[in-house]
Amino acid sequence: MRDAFHDDLDSIRLMLVEMGLMVGRSMALATKALLEADLPLAEQVISEDAHIDNVQHELDAKTLTLLARQQPVAGDLRSLVTSLRMSADLERMGDLINHIAKVARMRYPAKAVPIELIETVREMGKVAEQIIAKATSVIESHNLEEAMQLEKDDDEMDKLHRKLFLTLLDDSWSHGIEVAIDMTLLGRYYERCADHAVSVARRVYFLVTGEYASELS
Amino acid sequence: MRDAFHDDLDSIRLMLVEMGLMVGRSMALATKALLEADLPLAEQVISEDAHIDNVQHELDAKTLTLLARQQPVAGDLRSLVTSLRMSADLERMGDLINHIAKVARMRYPAKAVPIELIETVREMGKVAEQIIAKATSVIESHNLEEAMQLEKDDDEMDKLHRKLFLTLLDDSWSHGIEVAIDMTLLGRYYERCADHAVSVARRVYFLVTGEYASELS
Repeated sequence: MRDAFHDDLDSIRLMLVEMGLMVGRSMALATKALLEADLPLAEQVISEDAHIDNVQHELDAKTLTLLARQQPVAGDLRSLVTSLRMSADLERMGDLINHIAKVARMRYPAKAVPIELIETVREMGKVAEQIIAKATSVIESHNLEEAMQLEKDDDEMDKLHRKLFLTLLDDSWSHGIEVAIDMTLLGRYYERCADHAVSVARRVYFLVTGEYASELS
Repeated sequence: MRDAFHDDLDSIRLMLVEMGLMVGRSMALATKALLEADLPLAEQVISEDAHIDNVQHELDAKTLTLLARQQPVAGDLRSLVTSLRMSADLERMGDLINHIAKVARMRYPAKAVPIELIETVREMGKVAEQIIAKATSVIESHNLEEAMQLEKDDDEMDKLHRKLFLTLLDDSWSHGIEVAIDMTLLGRYYERCADHAVSVARRVYFLVTGEYASELS
Protein backbone atom coordinates (compact mmCIF):
# COMPACT_ATOMS: atom_id res chain seq x y z
CA MET A 1 0.00 0.00 0.00
CA ARG A 2 1.24 3.47 -0.92
CA ASP A 3 1.35 6.30 1.57
CA ALA A 4 0.30 9.86 0.74
CA PHE A 5 3.89 10.96 0.26
CA HIS A 6 4.54 8.38 -2.41
CA ASP A 7 1.30 9.33 -4.12
CA ASP A 8 2.66 12.88 -4.19
CA LEU A 9 5.93 11.67 -5.72
CA ASP A 10 3.91 9.86 -8.38
CA SER A 11 1.93 12.98 -9.14
CA ILE A 12 5.17 14.96 -9.54
CA ARG A 13 6.40 12.35 -11.97
CA LEU A 14 3.13 12.64 -13.88
CA MET A 15 3.53 16.42 -14.07
CA LEU A 16 7.04 15.99 -15.49
CA VAL A 17 5.63 13.59 -18.07
CA GLU A 18 2.94 16.14 -18.88
CA MET A 19 5.64 18.81 -19.36
CA GLY A 20 7.57 16.43 -21.62
CA LEU A 21 4.46 15.81 -23.74
CA MET A 22 3.77 19.56 -24.00
CA VAL A 23 7.37 20.22 -25.05
CA GLY A 24 7.27 17.43 -27.65
CA ARG A 25 4.03 18.75 -29.12
CA SER A 26 5.44 22.29 -29.24
CA MET A 27 8.55 21.05 -31.00
CA ALA A 28 6.46 19.38 -33.72
CA LEU A 29 4.31 22.48 -34.20
CA ALA A 30 7.27 24.90 -34.16
CA THR A 31 9.08 22.96 -36.88
CA LYS A 32 5.91 22.87 -38.98
CA ALA A 33 5.35 26.61 -38.44
CA LEU A 34 8.94 27.28 -39.42
CA LEU A 35 8.99 25.18 -42.57
CA GLU A 36 5.56 26.26 -43.80
CA ALA A 37 5.71 29.91 -42.65
CA ASP A 38 2.49 29.26 -40.73
CA LEU A 39 1.96 32.39 -38.62
CA PRO A 40 -1.07 31.28 -36.54
CA LEU A 41 0.79 28.06 -35.65
CA ALA A 42 3.90 30.04 -34.67
CA GLU A 43 1.73 32.27 -32.45
CA GLN A 44 0.18 29.18 -30.89
CA VAL A 45 3.62 27.76 -30.01
CA ILE A 46 4.69 31.11 -28.55
CA SER A 47 1.62 31.38 -26.35
CA GLU A 48 1.84 27.75 -25.22
CA ASP A 49 5.29 28.39 -23.79
CA ALA A 50 3.56 30.29 -20.97
CA HIS A 51 1.60 27.11 -20.12
CA ILE A 52 4.82 25.12 -19.94
CA ASP A 53 6.25 27.77 -17.60
CA ASN A 54 3.12 27.59 -15.45
CA VAL A 55 3.32 23.82 -15.10
CA GLN A 56 6.96 24.22 -14.09
CA HIS A 57 6.13 26.77 -11.40
CA GLU A 58 3.35 24.58 -10.06
CA LEU A 59 5.57 21.54 -10.13
CA ASP A 60 8.47 23.29 -8.38
CA ALA A 61 6.17 24.71 -5.71
CA LYS A 62 4.79 21.24 -5.05
CA THR A 63 8.30 19.78 -4.93
CA LEU A 64 9.52 22.43 -2.49
CA THR A 65 6.50 21.86 -0.26
CA LEU A 66 7.20 18.14 -0.15
CA LEU A 67 10.88 18.77 0.60
CA ALA A 68 9.87 20.99 3.51
CA ARG A 69 7.03 18.88 4.92
CA GLN A 70 8.21 15.33 4.35
CA GLN A 71 11.91 15.72 5.08
CA PRO A 72 12.72 12.88 2.70
CA VAL A 73 16.05 11.04 2.70
CA ALA A 74 18.00 8.86 0.27
CA GLY A 75 16.07 7.90 -2.86
CA ASP A 76 13.05 10.07 -2.10
CA LEU A 77 15.22 13.14 -1.56
CA ARG A 78 17.09 12.38 -4.78
CA SER A 79 13.79 12.04 -6.58
CA LEU A 80 12.62 15.50 -5.48
CA VAL A 81 15.92 17.25 -6.19
CA THR A 82 16.08 15.56 -9.60
CA SER A 83 12.53 16.70 -10.33
CA LEU A 84 13.59 20.32 -9.84
CA ARG A 85 16.43 19.84 -12.28
CA MET A 86 14.35 18.01 -14.88
CA SER A 87 11.63 20.65 -14.74
CA ALA A 88 14.33 23.30 -15.36
CA ASP A 89 15.55 21.35 -18.41
CA LEU A 90 12.04 20.98 -19.78
CA GLU A 91 11.25 24.64 -19.18
CA ARG A 92 14.42 25.62 -21.05
CA MET A 93 13.49 23.31 -23.93
CA GLY A 94 10.18 25.19 -24.09
CA ASP A 95 12.12 28.49 -24.35
CA LEU A 96 14.27 27.18 -27.19
CA ILE A 97 11.20 25.97 -29.09
CA ASN A 98 9.67 29.38 -28.47
CA HIS A 99 12.76 30.91 -30.13
CA ILE A 100 12.23 28.66 -33.17
CA ALA A 101 8.62 29.83 -33.47
CA LYS A 102 9.75 33.45 -33.14
CA VAL A 103 12.11 33.09 -36.11
CA ALA A 104 9.14 31.78 -38.13
CA ARG A 105 7.06 34.78 -37.01
CA MET A 106 9.85 37.31 -37.66
CA ARG A 107 10.32 36.16 -41.27
CA TYR A 108 6.62 35.74 -42.10
CA PRO A 109 5.26 35.85 -44.82
CA ALA A 110 8.63 34.65 -46.14
CA LYS A 111 9.86 31.19 -45.22
CA ALA A 112 12.84 31.44 -42.89
CA VAL A 113 14.44 28.23 -44.17
CA PRO A 114 15.80 28.22 -47.75
CA ILE A 115 15.01 25.28 -49.97
CA GLU A 116 18.37 23.51 -49.68
CA LEU A 117 18.05 23.37 -45.88
CA ILE A 118 14.41 22.29 -45.59
CA GLU A 119 15.26 18.60 -45.45
CA THR A 120 17.99 19.13 -42.82
CA VAL A 121 15.72 21.22 -40.61
CA ARG A 122 12.86 18.76 -41.02
CA GLU A 123 15.23 15.99 -39.88
CA MET A 124 16.48 18.08 -36.95
CA GLY A 125 12.88 18.62 -35.90
CA LYS A 126 12.10 14.92 -36.23
CA VAL A 127 15.17 13.85 -34.24
CA ALA A 128 14.37 16.47 -31.59
CA GLU A 129 10.80 15.15 -31.32
CA GLN A 130 12.10 11.59 -30.95
CA ILE A 131 14.60 12.56 -28.27
CA ILE A 132 11.95 14.50 -26.34
CA ALA A 133 9.52 11.55 -26.62
CA LYS A 134 12.20 9.16 -25.36
CA ALA A 135 13.20 11.48 -22.51
CA THR A 136 9.55 11.71 -21.52
CA SER A 137 9.23 7.95 -21.63
CA VAL A 138 12.38 7.61 -19.47
CA ILE A 139 10.87 9.98 -16.88
CA GLU A 140 7.90 7.63 -16.72
CA SER A 141 9.70 4.28 -16.91
CA HIS A 142 13.01 5.00 -15.13
CA ASN A 143 14.42 2.56 -17.66
CA LEU A 144 18.21 3.03 -17.75
CA GLU A 145 18.71 1.16 -21.00
CA GLU A 146 16.27 3.51 -22.69
CA ALA A 147 18.10 6.44 -21.03
CA MET A 148 21.39 5.37 -22.64
CA GLN A 149 19.80 5.34 -26.11
CA LEU A 150 19.33 9.10 -26.06
CA GLU A 151 23.05 9.63 -26.48
CA LYS A 152 22.87 7.93 -29.88
CA ASP A 153 19.96 10.08 -30.99
CA ASP A 154 21.98 13.09 -29.88
CA ASP A 155 24.86 11.98 -32.13
CA GLU A 156 22.35 12.02 -34.98
CA MET A 157 21.42 15.61 -34.06
CA ASP A 158 25.11 16.59 -34.02
CA LYS A 159 25.53 15.11 -37.51
CA LEU A 160 22.60 17.14 -38.83
CA HIS A 161 23.98 20.23 -37.13
CA ARG A 162 27.32 19.76 -38.93
CA LYS A 163 25.48 19.19 -42.21
CA LEU A 164 23.66 22.49 -41.73
CA PHE A 165 26.98 24.34 -41.29
CA LEU A 166 28.46 22.65 -44.38
CA THR A 167 25.51 23.89 -46.43
CA LEU A 168 25.97 27.43 -45.13
CA LEU A 169 29.69 27.31 -45.93
CA ASP A 170 29.30 25.81 -49.40
CA ASP A 171 30.34 28.05 -52.30
CA SER A 172 26.88 27.63 -53.77
CA TRP A 173 25.23 29.36 -50.76
CA SER A 174 23.30 32.25 -52.28
CA HIS A 175 21.07 33.46 -49.45
CA GLY A 176 23.42 35.92 -47.87
CA ILE A 177 24.27 36.75 -44.28
CA GLU A 178 20.82 37.28 -42.77
CA VAL A 179 19.58 33.81 -43.66
CA ALA A 180 22.93 32.36 -42.52
CA ILE A 181 22.48 34.05 -39.12
CA ASP A 182 18.91 32.70 -38.82
CA MET A 183 20.07 29.22 -39.71
CA THR A 184 23.02 29.35 -37.30
CA LEU A 185 20.69 30.30 -34.45
CA LEU A 186 18.02 27.79 -35.47
CA GLY A 187 20.64 25.03 -35.60
CA ARG A 188 21.76 25.98 -32.12
CA TYR A 189 18.16 25.95 -30.77
CA TYR A 190 17.53 22.43 -32.07
CA GLU A 191 20.87 21.16 -30.85
CA ARG A 192 20.52 22.67 -27.36
CA CYS A 193 17.00 21.30 -27.08
CA ALA A 194 18.33 17.82 -27.76
CA ASP A 195 21.14 18.39 -25.22
CA HIS A 196 18.60 19.20 -22.52
CA ALA A 197 16.63 16.06 -23.34
CA VAL A 198 19.84 14.02 -22.94
CA SER A 199 20.39 15.82 -19.67
CA VAL A 200 16.91 14.73 -18.50
CA ALA A 201 17.84 11.12 -19.25
CA ARG A 202 21.11 11.51 -17.31
CA ARG A 203 19.21 12.86 -14.35
CA VAL A 204 17.01 9.76 -14.35
CA TYR A 205 20.24 7.75 -14.28
CA PHE A 206 21.33 9.73 -11.21
CA LEU A 207 17.91 9.35 -9.63
CA VAL A 208 17.94 5.57 -9.97
CA THR A 209 21.61 4.87 -9.24
CA GLY A 210 22.72 7.83 -7.10
CA GLU A 211 25.68 8.28 -9.47
CA TYR A 212 26.27 10.88 -12.14
CA ALA A 213 26.07 9.51 -15.66
CA SER A 214 29.29 11.19 -16.77
CA GLU A 215 30.39 8.02 -18.51
CA LEU A 216 27.44 8.40 -20.86
CA SER A 217 28.85 11.59 -22.33
CA MET B 1 26.54 31.63 18.31
CA ARG B 2 26.34 29.71 15.04
CA ASP B 3 25.62 26.01 14.93
CA ALA B 4 27.46 23.56 12.68
CA PHE B 5 24.64 23.57 10.13
CA HIS B 6 24.81 27.32 9.63
CA ASP B 7 28.57 27.10 9.29
CA ASP B 8 27.93 24.57 6.53
CA LEU B 9 25.49 26.95 4.83
CA ASP B 10 28.16 29.66 5.01
CA SER B 11 30.72 27.38 3.46
CA ILE B 12 28.31 26.58 0.61
CA ARG B 13 27.86 30.28 0.04
CA LEU B 14 31.64 30.70 -0.04
CA MET B 15 31.94 27.92 -2.61
CA LEU B 16 29.36 29.67 -4.80
CA VAL B 17 31.36 32.89 -4.49
CA GLU B 18 34.49 30.95 -5.43
CA MET B 19 32.71 29.58 -8.52
CA GLY B 20 31.60 33.13 -9.42
CA LEU B 21 35.18 34.39 -9.14
CA MET B 22 36.47 31.52 -11.28
CA VAL B 23 33.84 32.19 -13.92
CA GLY B 24 34.61 35.93 -13.93
CA ARG B 25 38.33 35.28 -14.33
CA SER B 26 37.68 32.80 -17.16
CA MET B 27 35.47 35.32 -18.94
CA ALA B 28 38.24 37.94 -18.86
CA LEU B 29 40.84 35.48 -20.13
CA ALA B 30 38.56 34.03 -22.82
CA THR B 31 37.81 37.47 -24.26
CA LYS B 32 41.53 38.31 -24.25
CA ALA B 33 42.38 34.97 -25.90
CA LEU B 34 39.70 35.60 -28.52
CA LEU B 35 40.69 39.16 -29.39
CA GLU B 36 44.43 38.52 -29.39
CA ALA B 37 44.38 35.01 -30.89
CA ASP B 38 46.32 33.84 -27.82
CA LEU B 39 46.36 30.04 -28.06
CA PRO B 40 48.00 29.20 -24.69
CA LEU B 41 45.46 31.44 -22.97
CA ALA B 42 42.58 29.79 -24.84
CA GLU B 43 43.92 26.37 -23.76
CA GLN B 44 44.12 27.60 -20.17
CA VAL B 45 40.48 28.70 -20.20
CA ILE B 46 39.42 25.38 -21.71
CA SER B 47 41.27 23.36 -19.07
CA GLU B 48 40.00 25.55 -16.22
CA ASP B 49 36.42 24.70 -17.12
CA ALA B 50 37.04 21.26 -15.64
CA HIS B 51 37.92 22.92 -12.31
CA ILE B 52 34.66 24.87 -12.36
CA ASP B 53 32.80 21.61 -13.02
CA ASN B 54 34.64 19.96 -10.12
CA VAL B 55 33.72 22.72 -7.69
CA GLN B 56 30.11 22.37 -8.80
CA HIS B 57 30.07 18.62 -8.20
CA GLU B 58 31.66 19.09 -4.79
CA LEU B 59 29.22 21.86 -3.94
CA ASP B 60 26.17 19.89 -5.07
CA ALA B 61 27.31 16.80 -3.16
CA LYS B 62 27.70 18.90 -0.02
CA THR B 63 24.29 20.51 -0.57
CA LEU B 64 22.57 17.15 -1.06
CA THR B 65 24.22 15.78 2.09
CA LEU B 66 22.97 18.74 4.10
CA LEU B 67 19.48 18.37 2.65
CA ALA B 68 19.48 14.72 3.69
CA ARG B 69 21.06 15.06 7.15
CA GLN B 70 19.70 18.36 8.40
CA GLN B 71 16.16 18.21 7.07
CA PRO B 72 16.02 21.98 6.83
CA VAL B 73 12.77 23.92 6.51
CA ALA B 74 11.73 27.41 5.37
CA GLY B 75 14.65 29.75 4.69
CA ASP B 76 17.35 27.12 5.18
CA LEU B 77 15.67 24.75 2.75
CA ARG B 78 15.27 27.56 0.24
CA SER B 79 18.92 28.41 0.66
CA LEU B 80 20.02 24.86 -0.20
CA VAL B 81 17.67 24.45 -3.15
CA THR B 82 18.72 27.84 -4.48
CA SER B 83 22.38 26.84 -4.14
CA LEU B 84 21.78 23.89 -6.43
CA ARG B 85 20.22 26.19 -9.00
CA MET B 86 22.91 28.85 -8.77
CA SER B 87 25.67 26.29 -9.11
CA ALA B 88 23.95 25.01 -12.26
CA ASP B 89 23.87 28.57 -13.67
CA LEU B 90 27.53 29.14 -12.85
CA GLU B 91 28.53 25.80 -14.33
CA ARG B 92 26.67 26.64 -17.54
CA MET B 93 28.38 30.04 -17.68
CA GLY B 94 31.68 28.17 -17.51
CA ASP B 95 30.58 26.05 -20.49
CA LEU B 96 29.69 29.13 -22.54
CA ILE B 97 33.06 30.74 -21.75
CA ASN B 98 34.67 27.46 -22.75
CA HIS B 99 32.87 27.75 -26.12
CA ILE B 100 34.30 31.26 -26.56
CA ALA B 101 37.82 29.97 -25.93
CA LYS B 102 37.23 27.11 -28.37
CA VAL B 103 36.36 29.55 -31.16
CA ALA B 104 39.67 31.34 -30.45
CA ARG B 105 41.49 27.99 -30.62
CA MET B 106 39.70 26.84 -33.77
CA ARG B 107 40.64 30.00 -35.72
CA TYR B 108 44.24 30.24 -34.43
CA PRO B 109 46.63 31.60 -35.75
CA ALA B 110 44.00 33.86 -37.35
CA LYS B 111 41.98 36.20 -35.17
CA ALA B 112 38.36 35.05 -35.05
CA VAL B 113 36.98 38.58 -34.65
CA PRO B 114 37.32 40.96 -37.63
CA ILE B 115 38.55 44.48 -37.00
CA GLU B 116 35.14 46.22 -37.17
CA LEU B 117 33.77 43.98 -34.41
CA ILE B 118 36.73 44.07 -32.00
CA GLU B 119 35.32 46.99 -30.03
CA THR B 120 31.85 45.44 -29.75
CA VAL B 121 33.24 42.11 -28.57
CA ARG B 122 35.60 43.84 -26.13
CA GLU B 123 32.57 45.68 -24.70
CA MET B 124 30.51 42.47 -24.53
CA GLY B 125 33.36 40.86 -22.61
CA LYS B 126 33.62 43.83 -20.26
CA VAL B 127 29.86 43.94 -19.59
CA ALA B 128 29.84 40.16 -19.06
CA GLU B 129 32.68 40.48 -16.55
CA GLN B 130 30.82 43.24 -14.70
CA ILE B 131 27.60 41.24 -14.58
CA ILE B 132 29.43 38.16 -13.31
CA ALA B 133 31.24 40.25 -10.67
CA LYS B 134 27.95 41.77 -9.52
CA ALA B 135 26.19 38.40 -9.45
CA THR B 136 29.07 37.04 -7.35
CA SER B 137 28.80 40.00 -5.01
CA VAL B 138 25.03 39.44 -4.71
CA ILE B 139 25.63 35.80 -3.77
CA GLU B 140 27.84 37.07 -0.95
CA SER B 141 25.81 40.09 0.18
CA HIS B 142 22.21 38.97 -0.49
CA ASN B 143 21.67 42.64 -1.32
CA LEU B 144 18.42 42.90 -3.28
CA GLU B 145 19.07 46.41 -4.55
CA GLU B 146 22.32 45.21 -6.05
CA ALA B 147 20.45 42.21 -7.49
CA MET B 148 18.06 44.54 -9.34
CA GLN B 149 20.96 46.41 -10.96
CA LEU B 150 21.91 43.38 -13.00
CA GLU B 151 18.86 43.80 -15.20
CA LYS B 152 20.25 47.14 -16.39
CA ASP B 153 23.63 45.66 -17.19
CA ASP B 154 21.81 42.97 -19.12
CA ASP B 155 20.05 45.65 -21.19
CA GLU B 156 23.52 46.94 -22.06
CA MET B 157 24.49 43.44 -23.21
CA ASP B 158 21.36 43.22 -25.36
CA LYS B 159 22.25 46.54 -27.00
CA LEU B 160 25.73 45.29 -27.84
CA HIS B 161 24.24 42.08 -29.17
CA ARG B 162 21.98 44.04 -31.52
CA LYS B 163 24.94 46.20 -32.59
CA LEU B 164 26.84 43.04 -33.49
CA PHE B 165 24.00 41.84 -35.73
CA LEU B 166 23.75 45.26 -37.41
CA THR B 167 27.45 45.07 -38.27
CA LEU B 168 27.02 41.58 -39.74
CA LEU B 169 24.05 42.74 -41.81
CA ASP B 170 25.65 45.96 -43.07
CA ASP B 171 26.32 46.12 -46.82
CA SER B 172 29.97 46.80 -46.05
CA TRP B 173 30.38 43.36 -44.38
CA SER B 174 33.21 41.72 -46.31
CA HIS B 175 34.17 38.72 -44.19
CA GLY B 176 31.78 36.20 -45.62
CA ILE B 177 29.61 33.52 -44.08
CA GLU B 178 32.11 31.65 -41.91
CA VAL B 179 33.04 34.73 -39.87
CA ALA B 180 29.36 35.68 -39.66
CA ILE B 181 28.57 32.23 -38.22
CA ASP B 182 31.40 32.56 -35.67
CA MET B 183 30.22 36.00 -34.65
CA THR B 184 26.58 34.89 -34.38
CA LEU B 185 27.57 32.08 -32.05
CA LEU B 186 30.00 34.24 -30.05
CA GLY B 187 27.30 36.88 -29.61
CA ARG B 188 24.97 34.21 -28.34
CA TYR B 189 27.56 32.85 -25.86
CA TYR B 190 28.15 36.29 -24.32
CA GLU B 191 24.46 37.06 -24.17
CA ARG B 192 23.51 33.72 -22.60
CA CYS B 193 26.32 34.06 -20.07
CA ALA B 194 24.86 37.41 -18.99
CA ASP B 195 21.36 35.87 -18.84
CA HIS B 196 22.59 33.20 -16.44
CA ALA B 197 24.21 35.86 -14.24
CA VAL B 198 20.86 37.70 -14.11
CA SER B 199 19.24 34.41 -13.25
CA VAL B 200 21.68 34.00 -10.30
CA ALA B 201 20.61 37.43 -9.02
CA ARG B 202 16.93 36.47 -9.36
CA ARG B 203 17.57 33.32 -7.38
CA VAL B 204 19.04 35.40 -4.55
CA TYR B 205 15.83 37.42 -4.67
CA PHE B 206 13.84 34.20 -4.28
CA LEU B 207 16.16 33.00 -1.53
CA VAL B 208 15.70 36.18 0.51
CA THR B 209 12.01 36.86 -0.15
CA GLY B 210 10.55 33.44 -0.97
CA GLU B 211 9.00 34.99 -4.10
CA TYR B 212 10.00 34.67 -7.73
CA ALA B 213 11.53 37.84 -9.15
CA SER B 214 9.38 37.79 -12.28
CA GLU B 215 8.67 41.49 -11.93
CA LEU B 216 12.37 42.13 -12.50
CA SER B 217 12.20 40.82 -16.04
